[in-house]
Amino acid sequence: MANLENIKARKTLDQIQPYSPGKPIWEVQEELGLERVIKLASNENPLGPSKKAVEAIEQGVLGLNRYPDADASDLKTAIAKEHGVEKNQVIPTNGADELITLISEAFLEQGDEIVVPDPSFSEYDFGAHIMGAKVVKVPFAQGFTFDVDAMIAAVTDQTKIIYICSPNNPTGTYMKKQDVQKLLDAVGDVLVVFDAAYSHYADADDYTDGTEFIRQGYPLLTLKTFSKIYGIAGVRVGFGIAADSIITSILKVKEPFNVNTLAQLAATAAVTDHEHVTQSREANSRGREFLYEAFEELGLPYTKSMANFVLVKLGDEGEALYQDLMKKGVIVRYGKGWGLPEYVRVSVGTEEENKFFVQALRELIQK
Amino acid sequence: MANLENIKARKTLDQIQPYSPGKPIWEVQEELGLERVIKLASNENPLGPSKKAVEAIEQGVLGLNRYPDADASDLKTAIAKEHGVEKNQVIPTNGADELITLISEAFLEQGDEIVVPDPSFSEYDFGAHIMGAKVVKVPFAQGFTFDVDAMIAAVTDQTKIIYICSPNNPTGTYMKKQDVQKLLDAVGDVLVVFDAAYSHYADADDYTDGTEFIRQGYPLLTLKTFSKIYGIAGVRVGFGIAADSIITSILKVKEPFNVNTLAQLAATAAVTDHEHVTQSREANSRGREFLYEAFEELGLPYTKSMANFVLVKLGDEGEALYQDLMKKGVIVRYGKGWGLPEYVRVSVGTEEENKFFVQALRELIQK
Repeated sequence: MANLENIKARKTLDQIQPYSPGKPIWEVQEELGLERVIKLASNENPLGPSKKAVEAIEQGVLGLNRYPDADASDLKTAIAKEHGVEKNQVIPTNGADELITLISEAFLEQGDEIVVPDPSFSEYDFGAHIMGAKVVKVPFAQGFTFDVDAMIAAVTDQTKIIYICSPNNPTGTYMKKQDVQKLLDAVGDVLVVFDAAYSHYADADDYTDGTEFIRQGYPLLTLKTFSKIYGIAGVRVGFGIAADSIITSILKVKEPFNVNTLAQLAATAAVTDHEHVTQSREANSRGREFLYEAFEELGLPYTKSMANFVLVKLGDEGEALYQDLMKKGVIVRYGKGWGLPEYVRVSVGTEEENKFFVQALRELIQK
Repeated sequence: MANLENIKARKTLDQIQPYSPGKPIWEVQEELGLERVIKLASNENPLGPSKKAVEAIEQGVLGLNRYPDADASDLKTAIAKEHGVEKNQVIPTNGADELITLISEAFLEQGDEIVVPDPSFSEYDFGAHIMGAKVVKVPFAQGFTFDVDAMIAAVTDQTKIIYICSPNNPTGTYMKKQDVQKLLDAVGDVLVVFDAAYSHYADADDYTDGTEFIRQGYPLLTLKTFSKIYGIAGVRVGFGIAADSIITSILKVKEPFNVNTLAQLAATAAVTDHEHVTQSREANSRGREFLYEAFEELGLPYTKSMANFVLVKLGDEGEALYQDLMKKGVIVRYGKGWGLPEYVRVSVGTEEENKFFVQALRELIQK
């Protein structure tokens, strides 16, 4: 009889770090026996899903015995219209994280390199490790600003992809438009994946979501998601926009029915729900300001954010405070996984949730 | 400025054949200006989704701003209970096709080989090509019965995975339990992926869905789906059952939120909806018999099926009849993609749909 121990996963997978998601509310409630728990750990939209999206789902449930539209045609059309691009420049995926894996499968061979800012979203590394590619990490400069010159210097003949996450997760900082231009002009024939998952929250004049460079013919792919401002993280839709030749390459590795029917319906409706987007953006701006003021009052260094979260430095007590916040019913994300053990990342919640968090933090710090 | 043409997909992807899904009803309606179109092309459940699943979705929509449970804990528990295995022996995925890709990513290196029956489900080849592995195809014997000896003989030192699809898509034939046993004992330390997507429809005494061999400690993974008898193809849930060491290897390459929230809720409810399963199975058995009788009456050779579809030989006129059926509002799957240009595969529909199909076919053949 065969020996189970001889059925071994590929060696390169040893490099993959397990993803640690934000703890779900019910889990913390159960573990700690708490009645009220708020989650400010996964950068979700605290106002809830787009109502249009919810209605679209409710109308679609009875047809679920049928497979989804493999082409996601209506959704592509809606996204293309909203972004002023052609339909064949759009690829919807089962969340933006699937898109990162598909990009890796399409373009990375064993021994290739990717350049990523550090710290940033861990899924870039994940995609590279699946394909046996090497991850070259470029630290941020002072104040977590992008070090564009260092990123350019990190590119070698083996570099196949440069990732820019802007606004960056978990720092909230962004790459200025002129720096994106500089990088694109310096690196030549390398695919730039521009992760703009948080673009709706960015309000700096010199912010770009990258799509203008696609129109100019650069090999740049802008990645976006319905999991943040659109508020439908639960059904999983992300998408990419790029030149049709790049999209065609990625489509080769896509499974036919990757985006489920309800996700297609919900996202198609959400993309035109401008009222929900505006409300969510305004609430987020107010919430960020509230958090900034609270951190200043408490003497905690923080990084100004273009996203729906704020990175705040709690110091040596970082891990203890993270745990103590949980005991008070507030789940935030601890920074250790990003090599930032003195920090936590807190998502902007509703007005009431933000106050609840600040009150809990104040009690812990001033006790 | 960079040259877009120099951003090239990996060479190995040239081997991937684009998947051609069954044409959607609306597309045929639009193209041909037809009022009534029935789809018997994708082996969906014609009775519709499990009602319990629909209710579960309706109760879950308002929480969609939150990410899914990354562990799919409730769903794993429900599946494990139904199949008499441990929770850590289960992995739910975004449809069974995602699971095939994940298995490929976990176990296949460039130059490895997989052994597949031919013709069978094309996603096995897809997963292998993504990883640069070689596909070794073993033809069926007379009457599309599995040629177990040929499959065993096809195994080399490079073979990492043997796929068995039973009941097989598109033939409807199955591998007898004693042949599965024989294969497992002959091939040694090779992972056997046993695709039992259609297991609920199989009623032969010597049919196995493979799980009994998992309990005995064989390196076999049984793959199942919620897209067939459970009737929720639209939300995408498949799953694998295997030894926990095999599941752990596959989990390494899984994205954290691959199974969406509504899919988790729906599948967790559907797995206990035995009434829906029984009704669907009985309706399918009656439908198969009805189709057999009609094919006999029309003098068309067909293959007895353990699944919810029947492969029927239309002869030299196969492609023309496939097109003509479409013009009459009946979508079936043409066999050319499987190297069977004289055949079509027809899914068992409702009683009324089956009659509609047979009537259309009769008119075309007897005209």
